[in-house]
Amino acid sequence: MNMKVNDMCRMAKTASLRLAGLDGEAKNRAIAAIADALQANADAIAAANRKDLEAATGLAQPVLKRLKYDASKIAASVEGLRSLEQLADPVGTTLTATELDKGLDLYRVSCPIGVIGVVFESRPDALVQISTLCLKSGNAVLMKGGSEALNTNRILAQIVHDASIAAGVPEGWIQLMESRTDVSEMLKQDEYIDLIIPRGSNAFVKYIMENTNIPVMGHADGICHVYVDNAADIDMAVKIAVDSKTQYVSVCNAMETLLVHKDIAAAFLPKAAEALRAKNVRILGCELTRGIIEAEPASDADWDTEYLDYVLSIKVVSSLDEAIVHINEHGSGHTDAIVTENPTHASRFTSLVDSADVFWNCSTRFADGFRFGLGAEVGISTGKIHARGPVGLDGLCTYKWILKGSGDIVADFAEGSRHFTHKRIDGDYKEIFK
Amino acid sequence: MNMKVNDMCRMAKTASLRLAGLDGEAKNRAIAAIADALQANADAIAAANRKDLEAATGLAQPVLKRLKYDASKIAASVEGLRSLEQLADPVGTTLTATELDKGLDLYRVSCPIGVIGVVFESRPDALVQISTLCLKSGNAVLMKGGSEALNTNRILAQIVHDASIAAGVPEGWIQLMESRTDVSEMLKQDEYIDLIIPRGSNAFVKYIMENTNIPVMGHADGICHVYVDNAADIDMAVKIAVDSKTQYVSVCNAMETLLVHKDIAAAFLPKAAEALRAKNVRILGCELTRGIIEAEPASDADWDTEYLDYVLSIKVVSSLDEAIVHINEHGSGHTDAIVTENPTHASRFTSLVDSADVFWNCSTRFADGFRFGLGAEVGISTGKIHARGPVGLDGLCTYKWILKGSGDIVADFAEGSRHFTHKRIDGDYKEIFK
Repeated sequence: MNMKVNDMCRMAKTASLRLAGLDGEAKNRAIAAIADALQANADAIAAANRKDLEAATGLAQPVLKRLKYDASKIAASVEGLRSLEQLADPVGTTLTATELDKGLDLYRVSCPIGVIGVVFESRPDALVQISTLCLKSGNAVLMKGGSEALNTNRILAQIVHDASIAAGVPEGWIQLMESRTDVSEMLKQDEYIDLIIPRGSNAFVKYIMENTNIPVMGHADGICHVYVDNAADIDMAVKIAVDSKTQYVSVCNAMETLLVHKDIAAAFLPKAAEALRAKNVRILGCELTRGIIEAEPASDADWDTEYLDYVLSIKVVSSLDEAIVHINEHGSGHTDAIVTENPTHASRFTSLVDSADVFWNCSTRFADGFRFGLGAEVGISTGKIHARGPVGLDGLCTYKWILKGSGDIVADFAEGSRHFTHKRIDGDYKEIFK
Repeated sequence: MNMKVNDMCRMAKTASLRLAGLDGEAKNRAIAAIADALQANADAIAAANRKDLEAATGLAQPVLKRLKYDASKIAASVEGLRSLEQLADPVGTTLTATELDKGLDLYRVSCPIGVIGVVFESRPDALVQISTLCLKSGNAVLMKGGSEALNTNRILAQIVHDASIAAGVPEGWIQLMESRTDVSEMLKQDEYIDLIIPRGSNAFVKYIMENTNIPVMGHADGICHVYVDNAADIDMAVKIAVDSKTQYVSVCNAMETLLVHKDIAAAFLPKAAEALRAKNVRILGCELTRGIIEAEPASDADWDTEYLDYVLSIKVVSSLDEAIVHINEHGSGHTDAIVTENPTHASRFTSLVDSADVFWNCSTRFADGFRFGLGAEVGISTGKIHARGPVGLDGLCTYKWILKGSGDIVADFAEGSRHFTHKRIDGDYKEIFK
């Protein structure tokens, strides 16, 4: 494992060219083998993880919760792999087919991106998800996990590697980096790497973007909002606020700021505060909020803070549009929800809030590749290019254009003896090779 | 027009938030008004263009040909706008719809990216194409054209601006920059700009990538190949080679290198050379080529050269796979074609050549947004992220996820009282607001 990053990248590139030719069944056999191997080695994985946890006693409770990878989390990873196996091969799909003119047919066909570099945080289950999503989409992957999870990541990478190679996947497709120096080195390898996916804080994603020419699909902070509209059902709003805040506090799709329309604040806030306090949530509020319920004063910085903890800031707003402006200014473009019985308000909110996920009458916690049915996720993109929101298999693919003719030349069209029909057609590009 | 770039960006951002709400009919009315205004002002445009041409007498013939924007090219632009009008609104399309569980429906819906910065070369028709593609896709745009075309670009930008504003498009959506300093300034505006599209040389695209944190969709060199397989129809191969090389030499999708299988070289090359020389093509060849036809010796640098002129390098290869390796090493990932009657060879070529456009038995010159039926193009992406090949309206859109529930919370799924169904459903997201 003491390879230079440049060599790792070259190996990954070579593997990627072969991986692109692997059919869906071969990739599924490898995924099944990885799931079996994880199950068979669950005790050893949990033991490695306990070593990491013991070394990490100084860290905050939410971080420890994310670092923990015990039997039940391993089982969840295995279950994730079984559902990934069920998903269709994202490679080789005819996305569009167009007749340009009689006998001249154009196909847009999905294909792997190539080599992906992923830097992720302390959750070890991310290693399993990311590597297998890359495998299923035909990409080679270089990964760097959180240093707190080093022992867990090592055994997981080894298991994924060994099981997949034994199942026929080309050697070199999965590479584990272990130091920050490795990451700096990777950022220079634009000859070999097609996409970098950094998962972590805004500052970290910005650091990556400033230090590489490789395209970056950024997973930044999750400063998610729930806006309780004046036309909200109050009981529903309380339920959604509690779930969005407390169902799992240490993740990016948890709510950090609750916005409340002034006309419903007096009726809603006392009920909400009671329910949130029953879950031990510490409440910070604007002046108007503090006129209705007990709350510590929120400072301006609170509207830009991702607590990842049992802390919530609450602001009373005077209109739907004030809520939209607040979200577009202070949010991170991740996930924002409106609670309202008024469809016009919901339509305005979902069209004008410029976030990856805009939800109506449900919890922000649904923003997740597995819940969206994407078969786990490689990250949540808060950028707008290539993929947005939870990124699953589709976000790891690109496409190529295949044009089939029989001697067709542009001169005939330029001179007017032939004319484009541009007719959408049905058909799979694979048929043209039969 | 003496605004600071920072102000231009802020205005464009503000306009983009309003543009996102403009419906398809309103955008089409503006496009029709622009087409009418171009037609009405054709003489003034041509006059401005003649001023540019007179000042540019020192430039090479192919560059002058691209700079020229006369009545027939204006008419082609107008025709392009009429067909752009016919295309469906790319914004507000339900891309996928999934039932997560009963009553909890997820829609992936297309929406504009926001603010696009485009730096393009000396072709003035690019200004019309780019600005109207951005308008139709609901994006605001900052543009910088080639300085040789300054007079033409100024009048075109003014016409597009005036006609669109009169038709109700929000002020600020189109901004013309005129200096390199402006471009440097623009590259820093990651707060406002969502995507940069540089059109030009590899070196230029690389310069842009190195000097901005904004995502870049690169339009680099077009080093396009035609590979004449041993199973090629020779007459067809000659026809395709001539069209790919000579139908319009100064554009990125023209062939620069011709690869010929050794078994067909003796039969094919003399016919090809005769046809190419009839079009005044200067031929450079490898040693094997020069053993068959008269040709100047090609140097190693020729395999990496974009001539954009009546010059062609020819290489004889010993196998299909050698051709594929040559293309992946020396090509620019733009457009490469195989001529063969053997479907297995064609299948291998199209799956293993890692280019945006992989063509079978047709000319490389078909690689173009208008010919592909995309309604003109904003550029050709030789990168693999977001969009690849000719980029039309779809490439200027991103998407958001809209989730509609009725009080749904994640706790119920986590605790097992509810289960995800992940069923594909039919339906338009607009229906949920009715």
